[in-house]
Amino acid sequence: MIIDKLIRKIKECNNPTVVGLDPKIDFIPEYILQKNFDEFGKKPKAVANAFFEFNKKIIDEIYDLVPAVKPQIAMYEMYGAPGVKAYIQTVAYAKSKGLIVIGDIKRGDIQSTAEAYSDGHIGRVTGKGLDLTVFDEDMITLNPYLGSDSITPYLKNCKSYGRGLFILVKTSNPFSGDFQDLDVGGMKLYEKVGLSVAGWGKNLVGEYGFSSVGAVVGATYKQEALNLRALLPNTFFLVPGYGAQGGKAEDLAVCFNKDGIGAIVNSSRGIIAAYKNNKAYDENNFEKASRQAVIDMKEDLLKYLN
Amino acid sequence: MIIDKLIRKIKECNNPTVVGLDPKIDFIPEYILQKNFDEFGKKPKAVANAFFEFNKKIIDEIYDLVPAVKPQIAMYEMYGAPGVKAYIQTVAYAKSKGLIVIGDIKRGDIQSTAEAYSDGHIGRVTGKGLDLTVFDEDMITLNPYLGSDSITPYLKNCKSYGRGLFILVKTSNPFSGDFQDLDVGGMKLYEKVGLSVAGWGKNLVGEYGFSSVGAVVGATYKQEALNLRALLPNTFFLVPGYGAQGGKAEDLAVCFNKDGIGAIVNSSRGIIAAYKNNKAYDENNFEKASRQAVIDMKEDLLKYLN
Repeated sequence: MIIDKLIRKIKECNNPTVVGLDPKIDFIPEYILQKNFDEFGKKPKAVANAFFEFNKKIIDEIYDLVPAVKPQIAMYEMYGAPGVKAYIQTVAYAKSKGLIVIGDIKRGDIQSTAEAYSDGHIGRVTGKGLDLTVFDEDMITLNPYLGSDSITPYLKNCKSYGRGLFILVKTSNPFSGDFQDLDVGGMKLYEKVGLSVAGWGKNLVGEYGFSSVGAVVGATYKQEALNLRALLPNTFFLVPGYGAQGGKAEDLAVCFNKDGIGAIVNSSRGIIAAYKNNKAYDENNFEKASRQAVIDMKEDLLKYLN
Repeated sequence: MIIDKLIRKIKECNNPTVVGLDPKIDFIPEYILQKNFDEFGKKPKAVANAFFEFNKKIIDEIYDLVPAVKPQIAMYEMYGAPGVKAYIQTVAYAKSKGLIVIGDIKRGDIQSTAEAYSDGHIGRVTGKGLDLTVFDEDMITLNPYLGSDSITPYLKNCKSYGRGLFILVKTSNPFSGDFQDLDVGGMKLYEKVGLSVAGWGKNLVGEYGFSSVGAVVGATYKQEALNLRALLPNTFFLVPGYGAQGGKAEDLAVCFNKDGIGAIVNSSRGIIAAYKNNKAYDENNFEKASRQAVIDMKEDLLKYLN
């Protein structure tokens, strides 16, 4: 069960951190970018290649410190087909280093379309003699707005191939309450969605009492996170919003149980672009700045856990 | 304004139909598939190339009859980078034939991520001397669950580059009511989302009184469509669910105003795989079956409009 593997890795690293591999062109050191511009021209392929080189150097520096990475597919998709190739290469490279990969794809569609996303990302693509593994993430994020039949095709692949999901419940952005905080008769919409997530995951609960179907719960909303932790005892949380978005360790500690288990906290910019905000580092050792940022984040989180 | 262009093309064709270019490997004639397997092996690239060839033949047969096509990106994305390339090629080819292209991508994410999707799909990708047009759809579909700040980056590109959006309001799938039909204090969630969509689009209303920010409203829910048509007089509807999903012309007619304007109806399988259900055609003239299916659908819709 992938959730057990994730929890074991969190315990081994003593670090409930997932590193968001969300590269932007402005984060990439000039020497990496220029080499690729020289080789491929000012084309999507140059940026995509630079992203993968950048990610590889970061992964090499952090894979012994963190249990997981979370590439955000939008940052790659915006460069078209070469970008998607760099995303897939990043997934494969991170897995080769023993990391669990959470693909932040936030897909959501009707059943026949969900089957296509599910087979492409966490299943197998078959038909006419083909049997392909395409994206191959361990876990992916999903959007619940279309309802339960938009989720079932993923549950099937979670069971067949030992994969997992994190479904949006209460997101970290400033206006997440526009719909998520609406009162739907005795509870908020995000709580109702949370209960559905628990239901979808009830047959995928592992040895630690958590399901491979988890929830996305923003670090920026302490009271909501507290409500959800009480409401959903078997649901593991993926917690975005730490650092650059304003979420603080002392607030997001409510996402964890008393034993320090129950959530994994994401940081993206704060780690992968750490060299931009730390005068001890520059472009030539950006990956060392990322390593130090992971260590600092771990210490910050552990102060408030246990 | 893209919505004006769409409405003008619907009037010219006298046909409020959008053809869903959602290829599946089982839809592709053996002679196209085998040629690509012979050239590229049983690889994603072979299927992706076959999809583009299949789409081109259909586009060539229907571009004079319909105003728009709607490729569903999931069907391409499941084949990885080559699939995304075939999607982009399909968008470009359809536009070269004068069709309006609605990219069915249903993305939804926090603001910084939404900017990446928005620039990649309907804007320009810049930075470090780059200025790229990547996906280049005329309009795209979006998911509203994350709230208003997840939509604003797209509104900016709609204004700058004359693009449009269709935002999920009431979807066509059987369990769309799980959350969308919840009572949120005097109205349903889908109505509340619909009012937000109207608000997001209020500065993008064109000469026919409709906004370039439209709503997705399923053909399979007549009463809900009727409510929304009354509630959202300036919102154009993209209506999925006709045909294979069970939506009928007599029911979805409520999505249109009395002048027959106000919506565009999608059919995917019913048109692109028409040769499978019509004994007058076979693999060797599948595109002619698609042309006939478009003509039949137009007649069916027009019976109930005006």
